[in-house]
Amino acid sequence: MRRYKVAILGATGMVGQHYIKMLKDHPWFKISGLTGKESVGKKYVEAVRGEAPPPPPDIADMEVLPNDPKHVDADFVFSCLPTEPARESEPLFAQAGFPVFSDASAYRMEPDIPLIVPEINPDHLGLIEVQRKNRGWDGYIVTTPNCTTVGLVLPLHPLWKALGLNRVVVTTMQAVSGAGYPGVASLSILGNVIPYISGEEHKVETETRKILGRLENGAIRYDKTYVLATCTRVPTLDGHMESILAETGRPATAEEVVNLLEEYVSLPQELNLPTAPRRPILVRREPDRPQTRIDVDAGSIQGMAVSVGRIRVDGNNVRMISLSHNLIRGAAGGTILTAELAAYQGLLD
Amino acid sequence: MRRYKVAILGATGMVGQHYIKMLKDHPWFKISGLTGKESVGKKYVEAVRGEAPPPPPDIADMEVLPNDPKHVDADFVFSCLPTEPARESEPLFAQAGFPVFSDASAYRMEPDIPLIVPEINPDHLGLIEVQRKNRGWDGYIVTTPNCTTVGLVLPLHPLWKALGLNRVVVTTMQAVSGAGYPGVASLSILGNVIPYISGEEHKVETETRKILGRLENGAIRYDKTYVLATCTRVPTLDGHMESILAETGRPATAEEVVNLLEEYVSLPQELNLPTAPRRPILVRREPDRPQTRIDVDAGSIQGMAVSVGRIRVDGNNVRMISLSHNLIRGAAGGTILTAELAAYQGLLD
Amino acid sequence: MRRYKVAILGATGMVGQHYIKMLKDHPWFKISGLTGKESVGKKYVEAVRGEAPPPPPDIADMEVLPNDPKHVDADFVFSCLPTEPARESEPLFAQAGFPVFSDASAYRMEPDIPLIVPEINPDHLGLIEVQRKNRGWDGYIVTTPNCTTVGLVLPLHPLWKALGLNRVVVTTMQAVSGAGYPGVASLSILGNVIPYISGEEHKVETETRKILGRLENGAIRYDKTYVLATCTRVPTLDGHMESILAETGRPATAEEVVNLLEEYVSLPQELNLPTAPRRPILVRREPDRPQTRIDVDAGSIQGMAVSVGRIRVDGNNVRMISLSHNLIRGAAGGTILTAELAAYQGLLD
Amino acid sequence: MRRYKVAILGATGMVGQHYIKMLKDHPWFKISGLTGKESVGKKYVEAVRGEAPPPPPDIADMEVLPNDPKHVDADFVFSCLPTEPARESEPLFAQAGFPVFSDASAYRMEPDIPLIVPEINPDHLGLIEVQRKNRGWDGYIVTTPNCTTVGLVLPLHPLWKALGLNRVVVTTMQAVSGAGYPGVASLSILGNVIPYISGEEHKVETETRKILGRLENGAIRYDKTYVLATCTRVPTLDGHMESILAETGRPATAEEVVNLLEEYVSLPQELNLPTAPRRPILVRREPDRPQTRIDVDAGSIQGMAVSVGRIRVDGNNVRMISLSHNLIRGAAGGTILTAELAAYQGLLD
Repeated sequence: MRRYKVAILGATGMVGQHYIKMLKDHPWFKISGLTGKESVGKKYVEAVRGEAPPPPPDIADMEVLPNDPKHVDADFVFSCLPTEPARESEPLFAQAGFPVFSDASAYRMEPDIPLIVPEINPDHLGLIEVQRKNRGWDGYIVTTPNCTTVGLVLPLHPLWKALGLNRVVVTTMQAVSGAGYPGVASLSILGNVIPYISGEEHKVETETRKILGRLENGAIRYDKTYVLATCTRVPTLDGHMESILAETGRPATAEEVVNLLEEYVSLPQELNLPTAPRRPILVRREPDRPQTRIDVDAGSIQGMAVSVGRIRVDGNNVRMISLSHNLIRGAAGGTILTAELAAYQGLLD
Repeated sequence: MRRYKVAILGATGMVGQHYIKMLKDHPWFKISGLTGKESVGKKYVEAVRGEAPPPPPDIADMEVLPNDPKHVDADFVFSCLPTEPARESEPLFAQAGFPVFSDASAYRMEPDIPLIVPEINPDHLGLIEVQRKNRGWDGYIVTTPNCTTVGLVLPLHPLWKALGLNRVVVTTMQAVSGAGYPGVASLSILGNVIPYISGEEHKVETETRKILGRLENGAIRYDKTYVLATCTRVPTLDGHMESILAETGRPATAEEVVNLLEEYVSLPQELNLPTAPRRPILVRREPDRPQTRIDVDAGSIQGMAVSVGRIRVDGNNVRMISLSHNLIRGAAGGTILTAELAAYQGLLD
Repeated sequence: MRRYKVAILGATGMVGQHYIKMLKDHPWFKISGLTGKESVGKKYVEAVRGEAPPPPPDIADMEVLPNDPKHVDADFVFSCLPTEPARESEPLFAQAGFPVFSDASAYRMEPDIPLIVPEINPDHLGLIEVQRKNRGWDGYIVTTPNCTTVGLVLPLHPLWKALGLNRVVVTTMQAVSGAGYPGVASLSILGNVIPYISGEEHKVETETRKILGRLENGAIRYDKTYVLATCTRVPTLDGHMESILAETGRPATAEEVVNLLEEYVSLPQELNLPTAPRRPILVRREPDRPQTRIDVDAGSIQGMAVSVGRIRVDGNNVRMISLSHNLIRGAAGGTILTAELAAYQGLLD
Repeated sequence: MRRYKVAILGATGMVGQHYIKMLKDHPWFKISGLTGKESVGKKYVEAVRGEAPPPPPDIADMEVLPNDPKHVDADFVFSCLPTEPARESEPLFAQAGFPVFSDASAYRMEPDIPLIVPEINPDHLGLIEVQRKNRGWDGYIVTTPNCTTVGLVLPLHPLWKALGLNRVVVTTMQAVSGAGYPGVASLSILGNVIPYISGEEHKVETETRKILGRLENGAIRYDKTYVLATCTRVPTLDGHMESILAETGRPATAEEVVNLLEEYVSLPQELNLPTAPRRPILVRREPDRPQTRIDVDAGSIQGMAVSVGRIRVDGNNVRMISLSHNLIRGAAGGTILTAELAAYQGLLD
């Protein structure tokens, strides 16, 4: 595989720092540029909050660039911009010829823009062609889902394939890092649960159906599964826990569900992509796992596996707890894996 | 109403301290004795952990009695004993002629022992007669539900009555005080969620159906509602939050559900019992309420109302968030209210 | 005592809400106006964050006024403005004839502006005359100290009087509410200690010396005590804990120190001012008290007493732990008490 | 260097798990046995709480041995037993010929038992000879200090050497893992600070003086530095923060103190011992560092460096904040480093 130069748009935020950490020794991708906003012209190390582990020296000294295709020298870009800047900038980069891999929500639900979980719907990358034609772009935009959607849809996928899926009821317990920095005020969340995250439930409910949908005649036919989500914020740092009830198309046993989850591998594993965990789903058999603080970094690639436990099955009703790292599998890591898939398929050349 | 002397079994624990606080100026009940275990013979004030607000002086100086009917002078007793001591002692007190009002789980599911939420099933006190006959007791045992059950079944009751109820899916986020003291280790829960509480889900699922059941021919016919519960522990101090999906018998609108909850009053309110909150359910209309730390003490009698918010209705699917004080409405307060009902009905005389 | 009309400048913040709560049934002071900034023209209840208990109905419906003397009808004002707005507005109010009682830091260290802890230096109100003459104001400004200074200087005062004081070493563990809302990000403080609060140590070190200073010839001669402060932020909600080493002028015994603290009363107690706690200092004898969450509301007027414990004395070295409510004794309550003292002395007429 | 077999006494606790993690790839030491109490006869992996990362497979399957020299095959032992079991067992192992390296407190203050911080007082290992003669043991006991002492005495050492030291005032903010498992109840510490840890202050005050003492004629002459400690518990997981005032023998400047700390290396660094961090003290120049959660794992060997920041110097008064990992530098890691020093000196042969 040749090496690709990649720029990170919005690199000074929390997700940006995770991109840098994960790309440090990446065999295919090499960071060639970092963009920011208030910090343009500063050294990267001075532009980020000091709490994260310091960036590698070559990255630390990079100058933060403006968020503008003219200033960026790269084969493709990752975007972890906030919604509104993403809405504005990503099309400019796509128009200027860059493949854009974005975890921003701005374009996820556009009909001609793929929303990818590499294990589930790699074929949706086929939308790129449609998108380029529609929009007359040399580049393109590929999106990855909301962090909470990922922790839901990954464990649903093997059940959906093997048993069918009618309805999903999910209640989440999400970490404060999901709201970025400064995000949630300590006065609001210390010793508290806030049963509301603006816009989150709608994202989980609709993104899930797009990801599980079918690409037909250049468009995604949404999956029919009815998703009822309730999203809450709890005083944890990283890791979104989800209490899931999946109503499957046919009855199953707990053993069957455990096997389906545990044996689940997919294209990224078969291709042995650099950021693909050996197993995307780790089944925990202890009665009280997964736990947020303890299991957040699970996976042969840290933070890339979803831990699933407390599997309880009664006929068509499958209950389980999932836990995933909202900044890694749910953001930087998931998007890097998507770009690896695209690289493999020649979509970066 | 005459005044009744009441002894508290297991008075030195966390729930015991809430009984004492709530009975301080009670118009009908006066504390005449406190029992304990390791602390027998000590002054009460020396037997309890010093963190709670100090007990009133007359209570502070009471000698802790052994947990034995021979040492207790009272018209009836409250029991907040742990399960095993409750299993052993409560029948001895009932046999010795005491009405026992217990929030322990030991006898909740016995066919001839009532499990009471005063707003929902006051008529189940009719089991007392059956119980006395069966067991040859002069006294009797009346139980109140698990703290998590109360926060679920109270908001379900008006929906169940008006719309019918087929199925309930609930995920709870429970405070550490629900596990007593010392209970949950700080190392286990700081910055963490533990998605498991031993035995809790089964209690919630079965108690709900007994409470909503019908008393027929001296026995409770369980309600047919299918309850699927997942119980988690979060780093909050007091207050159990519950994310509820109620699948009603007929479709409703959000407005209809709000009205049913908001206008809900029942026998304790009609009788104006001393510990009855003016409204057992408080509907919150803000998008992000109820919250654990902020709403835990809601109610005209502090901690006796269940706060309900985030009401979202789609046909038969009613989603809502409930929050209740696990030590007050879910323990001491709920049991005191039950004893008030019994007093009103002449069952303490 | 006649009743005075008072307006609260900056009433929509956290401290403002505490003023409203404490003035609700105040025998001397009645709220006649509330000022704000972004929320001018709104009803007060819509201008504050919904988390606090709702304000009393007559306050809830008040219209938020601009921060301008022309719009305010009052006998005097409380100011809980942020530093910069306080710097700008307070002199305008004083010039317009209003007595201004402020817990803002803007003017605390001005030579002709009193910095008052009513138990310690009520005579410093004598500076008002100097101030008016200097500045040609009809009104005047009186300030109260930083929340952390109060919890230090109150327990120092009886030792300073009886034993003398050479040096003080203090390390604080301060609650997040001290930084206002949104204040400290949850990502920054969950499971963490931050050993730095901008500007705080200098305030503690200099304010203490001004408060203990002597009013001579129209100026304050600062006390000579050398104060070495280290201020940290910990994940608690309300209540600043301080670990104090006081090096006294002569050796003492623990018993002597306990007695000095426990018997300490001063002018506000003698005058029986409405917000004066019966005892400004509560000595805790348990080995592990005071504790932040448990003792924060101590005092016959809730939150107005400083709890002091862990008194350990070795010759001239007196170690102790103090705990005070940063928003009550350290802000709203301390300033109300100061205004009560001024009212008593005819300074509001 | 030859390879030594080592057994870990009390291996199933939290510190034991850190020993196993740190010894996993150790070049000199190989685990040959693990002892426990209730879990004797079980596999190690079944004897420990499941929250820690799973032990390496060869360790996981080891059978937990009784805490008895007859059952242990090793060249020396590490002891992380609780105080009372340590008091009983360690002499039996020493008598049976084992060198015992212990982080238990039982024998730390015995006159003929060394209390070692390898950077500070490696020469105190000279006491071993005295000890063996006194007690007629083939083996010996070497102890390492309380976790809080280490984070104090390490940054004091370069100041003590270069400037002299008269007095130290320290207030600590200690993590809950310092109390072991289950240790501090979540109900006690959530949103709270507890200003008391039983016995801790005395340990810090006396151990510091022994460690800085001089070995003369087969005995330690304690250093004369007067230490005044106040120890508190805060809601953090790992890492003890200490707010230190060091009163030095001669005045210094901040720059001088920074240099002394930053350039500090000692025998373990010179010998390049496997667990010696390249720099035992890391100076942080940011205004708000070190922070507990962020800096706890500092060091070229993770958790073995003490981070020091907020250095403020006024004449003889040096203020600073230190942060150290209580389970690594303050327990397992410090003791392993001590054993490496002993191995280097031939004391394990």
